[in-house]
Amino acid sequence: MENYRLRFIPLGGVIDVTKNMYVYEAYQGDVLRDILIVDCGIGFPQDKGLGVDFVIPDISYLNDKADKIRAVLLSHGHEDHISALPYHYERLGRPPVYASKLTSLFVKSKFNEMNERVDITGIDYKKKYQLGVFEVQFIDITHSIPDTVHMLIRTPVGNFYHGADFKLDLTPPYGNPPDFYEITKFGREGVLCLLSDCLGAEREGLTLSESVVGETFEDEMRKTKGKFIITTFSSNISRIRQCAEAAVKFGRKIVFMGRSMRENTRLAEEIGYLPIPKESFLKEEDVMRFPPNKVCLVVAGSQGQYSSALVKLANNQNRNVRIKPGDKIVFSSDPIPGNENEVYSLIEELMLLGADVAYSDVQEQLHASGHGSQEDLKFLIRFTNPKYFIPIGGTIRHQRAYQRLVTELGYPKDAVFLLDEGETVLFEKGRLRKGEVIETKNVYVDAYGVGDVGNIVLRDRKSLATDGMVVAALIVDSKLRMVSKPKIISRGFVFEKQEEKMFAEAERMINSILKPKKGKVVNLGNVKKQVADNLEEFFFQKKGRKPLIVVDIIQL
Amino acid sequence: MENYRLRFIPLGGVIDVTKNMYVYEAYQGDVLRDILIVDCGIGFPQDKGLGVDFVIPDISYLNDKADKIRAVLLSHGHEDHISALPYHYERLGRPPVYASKLTSLFVKSKFNEMNERVDITGIDYKKKYQLGVFEVQFIDITHSIPDTVHMLIRTPVGNFYHGADFKLDLTPPYGNPPDFYEITKFGREGVLCLLSDCLGAEREGLTLSESVVGETFEDEMRKTKGKFIITTFSSNISRIRQCAEAAVKFGRKIVFMGRSMRENTRLAEEIGYLPIPKESFLKEEDVMRFPPNKVCLVVAGSQGQYSSALVKLANNQNRNVRIKPGDKIVFSSDPIPGNENEVYSLIEELMLLGADVAYSDVQEQLHASGHGSQEDLKFLIRFTNPKYFIPIGGTIRHQRAYQRLVTELGYPKDAVFLLDEGETVLFEKGRLRKGEVIETKNVYVDAYGVGDVGNIVLRDRKSLATDGMVVAALIVDSKLRMVSKPKIISRGFVFEKQEEKMFAEAERMINSILKPKKGKVVNLGNVKKQVADNLEEFFFQKKGRKPLIVVDIIQL
Repeated sequence: MENYRLRFIPLGGVIDVTKNMYVYEAYQGDVLRDILIVDCGIGFPQDKGLGVDFVIPDISYLNDKADKIRAVLLSHGHEDHISALPYHYERLGRPPVYASKLTSLFVKSKFNEMNERVDITGIDYKKKYQLGVFEVQFIDITHSIPDTVHMLIRTPVGNFYHGADFKLDLTPPYGNPPDFYEITKFGREGVLCLLSDCLGAEREGLTLSESVVGETFEDEMRKTKGKFIITTFSSNISRIRQCAEAAVKFGRKIVFMGRSMRENTRLAEEIGYLPIPKESFLKEEDVMRFPPNKVCLVVAGSQGQYSSALVKLANNQNRNVRIKPGDKIVFSSDPIPGNENEVYSLIEELMLLGADVAYSDVQEQLHASGHGSQEDLKFLIRFTNPKYFIPIGGTIRHQRAYQRLVTELGYPKDAVFLLDEGETVLFEKGRLRKGEVIETKNVYVDAYGVGDVGNIVLRDRKSLATDGMVVAALIVDSKLRMVSKPKIISRGFVFEKQEEKMFAEAERMINSILKPKKGKVVNLGNVKKQVADNLEEFFFQKKGRKPLIVVDIIQL
Repeated sequence: MENYRLRFIPLGGVIDVTKNMYVYEAYQGDVLRDILIVDCGIGFPQDKGLGVDFVIPDISYLNDKADKIRAVLLSHGHEDHISALPYHYERLGRPPVYASKLTSLFVKSKFNEMNERVDITGIDYKKKYQLGVFEVQFIDITHSIPDTVHMLIRTPVGNFYHGADFKLDLTPPYGNPPDFYEITKFGREGVLCLLSDCLGAEREGLTLSESVVGETFEDEMRKTKGKFIITTFSSNISRIRQCAEAAVKFGRKIVFMGRSMRENTRLAEEIGYLPIPKESFLKEEDVMRFPPNKVCLVVAGSQGQYSSALVKLANNQNRNVRIKPGDKIVFSSDPIPGNENEVYSLIEELMLLGADVAYSDVQEQLHASGHGSQEDLKFLIRFTNPKYFIPIGGTIRHQRAYQRLVTELGYPKDAVFLLDEGETVLFEKGRLRKGEVIETKNVYVDAYGVGDVGNIVLRDRKSLATDGMVVAALIVDSKLRMVSKPKIISRGFVFEKQEEKMFAEAERMINSILKPKKGKVVNLGNVKKQVADNLEEFFFQKKGRKPLIVVDIIQL
């Protein structure tokens, strides 16, 4: 296997936290033999409120390589690790997909929503899968969702430990604790590179067990006289289960609110992951018929997503349920980096309705992060004892913090490779170096389609949102002579009635541009651009704003 | 191996924390085949200031069993795990002793001090030792002294994990991190019983790494204008090394003070565990010739032992060194349970001399416990996944806290066996139950010998210490008739001169007791007892004290 090389390409999940997708390529000499893909998740755009629902990884790089893709492996059922797969599955050549029980169920549901089909191989933890030259083994690990796995990937150049999102939870409320034996055994065998979750690298100590949160729920429920309302990620089945069990204990009926919450809990129930008696559930329509202290609402929207069930509650837009003084609302999740504003506004709106809102800044143990803190991360390093490190699933800040941790354990700083999206690393002859950079762009998804919203559309939406728009309609004859006065319409720019003089001036300016000039061939595109540029300059001088300018020339 | 049984007997180390000694006995049917002993340490008496230096385990139970003892295994070089061995070695039949490098050196030094000899087998971590029916493997673990080991003991009834004092230190300043692979492998093989250190079972989280303390030393040294004085256990070689390295960094000369400190550091230097340049050391006599900010003293006596180097410094009894304002004294150790009073008095005396005293109640990270906290303990449980548990090395309080931890991990409460000294447990057919209780007593050691100080001597010393003594000397003829007035002498009871009347009255009382009574046979012993009882009663009524009363009848 001497002339084998391996290339690792993060198509997302680095710098960005979400939108996880990692590509392992095995080359024999210069010939690409096999590709393995780990995860294929959606991301959340940095620019909010521009009508983009989410972003998905850009897989252009894989366009002509579908025949080399041996499998897609999925680490766990969170959206940022699985939900882009239905969008890309066809283009990837419909490769085999490997996933654990709950993950499979969540992925299939995503495919169903889009009327797509997929076959998923449920993983056997005892088996080693030969996928091209890659040998893959899945092991139990703990995170904030059951059935999370890590992957031991044996390749011709060495062993890779793919350590996606995890914490070391010794008392997981559901499922097994981490498989320490297989992890350390792999470490003893020799690990060339550890890819590790790094999102918690700035936090000291060990991350709290999920179980601790369950105890907190009981304490809070006991003290609450009104409705008990909890919001968390709808994929956090363990958390939801603990809350539901506490509700049963205190005789509160449970209502799941929000589409994703209803769908995920339905799937989890299907496979016995939510063993709650049927009679403990209530429909949203019936909430008002029960005394507040007999109700527990589990509501989607902990990140303040604008169309979520919780935001609707905060805005009094839900006909069935109203937030009242005495209600307790528990945010059992931290804001994803970038979502802070939305989350804190939502908290404040709920407070204004008279609710008592608890969130992790004011109260400990409402939320246990799903991501390992410094000690969790150090344990994994000691268990696997790798030669190289690639921190994944974190921003630059988290990657740097992870690098510091690694050096504290006595490794050299340059054993850690900090990657940006599309930056590749090349392993050959047991060594690692940075390779060429693969170009990627954001692929935006909104309610109407995938990828038809590009960066330009977003830039336009952003300028519309801040400065408004101006449309100039020019009606000309075949020789580009104006047949009537230009018409200027604006929206969101200035109050037109008060600015009639300015718009009249703008019209005169357009007239002067359109005036035929001797000996010049007039080109429609050029005129459009000239008019637009002049208007932009004109309005900026007058108002200091840059509305989006649309020039429409109608030739008769 | 079906008719094998195993009996486990703690001869110390339970309830008492110190004086660790554990006996594993393998029976075939009813026939005792093989005995394995783990550790043989000294303990510290609960009653202070009564002239007892320490206690050692009572090995009477092993008296007629020396020919069955296959080996003594030592876990690490702390006094409470090794220092009783020279006292018992002969009686144990001079069995083979297995110990790691530093431990061997410390044990040999203990034997040398008593002019005894011992052969020690240095352990090979790769080897499995067959000792009678026991198969023993030693593995790297971390504690506050280098070369600490845990033992994997395979027996005909099942596997035992002997987890003496430890914490999971991922960044030990000296030696390897814990051997997670071998631990988890043993767990996978199947562990019948985990014997685990439980001293830290009340503390949340993970115990700090020894390395953290090194950083604190540097910070403190940087800020200190006077002498920098640190006190810790003289066996804590890692801690001492970190302090010495900080001293070298800041150009301070190092002085080791106290016999045990000099001896232990000499031994550690011998095997390269204290790699400090010779020229960085200073003799105690030369301290005053150096500016205070160029000196670093490493002083024995952190437990406030009454004849220790630190207590002498506090009492201004050291001719070479004086504590002065501006000096910084760092207690890098916590009081062993029971020593709190001595330690806090010492701290206050040092403060009165003008020194700035730092100890872990007022400043974090001066001391990292050598004992695992709740998370360390939980990790070991998850790694080994045993059927039964025996907490060792802790008092009842710590044992109970350990039991709570175990149940939090989902085990039944009765999987945990809480043992008192001499309480045995019997393993047969894969099950465990409490067996008979072996009688043990305290064996006291003072400067003059072993075991000649018993419980009665100690009781007398205690009453002498609190209430003083009264001696009544009676001179009688062969018929027990007084030939002169009884003579009463007291010490430490009352001021005799002021109490002449009381003593005269006591003498008259003795006379009346001694007056011959018709028809009664007079017995010397009875008389003695009668006099003593009457005097005790008399003095108690008069003064409310119970001096030790000695009646001496001299018959002419």
